[in-house]
Amino acid sequence: MHLFYQPLASVFALDEEESRHLTKVLRLRTGDSIHVTDGKGLLQTCRITELGKNVKYVVTESSHIPQRTRKVIMAVAPTRKAERNEWMVEKMTEIGVDQIDFIVTEHTHTEGINRVVNLTRLNRIAVAAMKQSQQYHLPLISVGQKLGHYLADHNVMYNKLLAYVPEHDTSPHVFKLVEKEKDTVLLIGPEGDFTPEEVALAISTGYKTVSLGLTRLRTETAAVAGCHAINLARNL
Amino acid sequence: MHLFYQPLASVFALDEEESRHLTKVLRLRTGDSIHVTDGKGLLQTCRITELGKNVKYVVTESSHIPQRTRKVIMAVAPTRKAERNEWMVEKMTEIGVDQIDFIVTEHTHTEGINRVVNLTRLNRIAVAAMKQSQQYHLPLISVGQKLGHYLADHNVMYNKLLAYVPEHDTSPHVFKLVEKEKDTVLLIGPEGDFTPEEVALAISTGYKTVSLGLTRLRTETAAVAGCHAINLARNL
Repeated sequence: MHLFYQPLASVFALDEEESRHLTKVLRLRTGDSIHVTDGKGLLQTCRITELGKNVKYVVTESSHIPQRTRKVIMAVAPTRKAERNEWMVEKMTEIGVDQIDFIVTEHTHTEGINRVVNLTRLNRIAVAAMKQSQQYHLPLISVGQKLGHYLADHNVMYNKLLAYVPEHDTSPHVFKLVEKEKDTVLLIGPEGDFTPEEVALAISTGYKTVSLGLTRLRTETAAVAGCHAINLARNL
Repeated sequence: MHLFYQPLASVFALDEEESRHLTKVLRLRTGDSIHVTDGKGLLQTCRITELGKNVKYVVTESSHIPQRTRKVIMAVAPTRKAERNEWMVEKMTEIGVDQIDFIVTEHTHTEGINRVVNLTRLNRIAVAAMKQSQQYHLPLISVGQKLGHYLADHNVMYNKLLAYVPEHDTSPHVFKLVEKEKDTVLLIGPEGDFTPEEVALAISTGYKTVSLGLTRLRTETAAVAGCHAINLARNL
C-alpha cells in the first residue's frame, strides 16, 4: 500500500505535494486505502474521502512502530556540494539513521553553508527516503553546530566514535567499536579532515578514533559507509 | 603526491583532460613530481618534463601494487536514472570493487539503456573515483549482458550471492555468506525486483539468496551497501 507523510496526527489531510503525487502520479481515487505516517512512528491505514488540492482521509486503523532501541547519530562536516550532502541524507535515511547533524569544523567552508545544506530540501529528501524504504521514523536533521559545542553537549553515556585516518592508521574499524547497548554517535570530518587539535579535543571528551576500511573515502561516502557499518554491527 | 591516469604504460604523456587538470587546477610545473597509474596496478613516480596540451614526463620510480587477492564482482540491474547509475559506480569504486556488470533482467527497462548506462561516462567516473580514493586498479565495467547468459557463463568456483528480499524474508545477511577464499559475485535486482523464475534460475546455477538488512533499499543503495558489506566481511 502507498505510504504518505503527514507530520500532524490531528490533521486528516495531505499537503499539496503529497496530494499531487497521490492524484497525478499514482492516480488513486476516493475510497482507495493508503498508509499515512507522521514520521514519529505512527502508522495509519486510511481511506480517501475527498480528492483535491489537499486530499482528505479517514483513519481506519492505527498502530505505533517502535523506534530503534538505540540511536544511530551521524555528525558530519558538510561537503561544499549541495548534491553530495543531499545524497548523504537520502542514503543514510534508507539504511537507518535517527539523527544527522551537519557540524562546523575548522576546515569546514562556512561560506554559503545554508545553500549547500538547505534544511528544507534535506528534510524533503529524508521524507521521500523514509517513505521509499518503508520506515516510519524521520531522522532529525540539524545544521551549523560548532564542533566544540557539539562535543561539550554530548551525553556521557553515548558510544562516541570519530572517523580519522592519518597515514599508517592503526585504529580499529568502526564495526568493532559499536556498543550495542548504547546510542552511537559517529563523527565524520570535512575534506581536509579534522585538525589534530579537534581530534585531541574529541578524545578528551570520550571519543575513540576508528577507521572506515582500506580505501580513502570522500566525506559523503565515509558517512554512508560509517552509517551502514553501525547498522550492520547492531543487527547482524 | 597527485595521482594521474595513463592506461598505456608505454606512453609517457597525459591525455588532454588530465593535462588540463594538472596545469589549470593544480598549477603544477616542469620539474614537479607526480604519480601516474595505468589502472592495472602500476604505480609510477614521474617528473614533469614538458607542459602543454599533453603533459610529458619521465618515470623515476616504478612499482606494482597487487590486486585484491579475491575479486569483488557486482552484477547490477541499472536504474532508469543515469545519475543513480553513475553514483553507484563512483561509490563502489571508492569502497572497493573489481568488476561491475550492468545486467539486463526481465524487469529492466532496456529502452534508452545506453543513455542511462553510458560506458564512456562510467569509465571516466571510475577513473576519477580510483584516483580520489588512491587506488591503482580500475574496475572493469560492462553493460547489457542478459541475466540468463550471465548466469550460464559464471565460474563454478565463485561465491555466488543474490540479493532478494521477498516479504517475510529469512535469508541470511550477505555479510554472513561471503567466503573469503573465493571471488564473490553479488547480483542486485532492478526496481520491481527479479522475477521468481529468475531467482529460481540463479539458485539452480549455485546462487544463494541473501538479505541486505532491515530496510528496503533502492537499487543503487543496495549495490553500494552490498559492495560495502562484502569488503567488510573480507577485511575485518
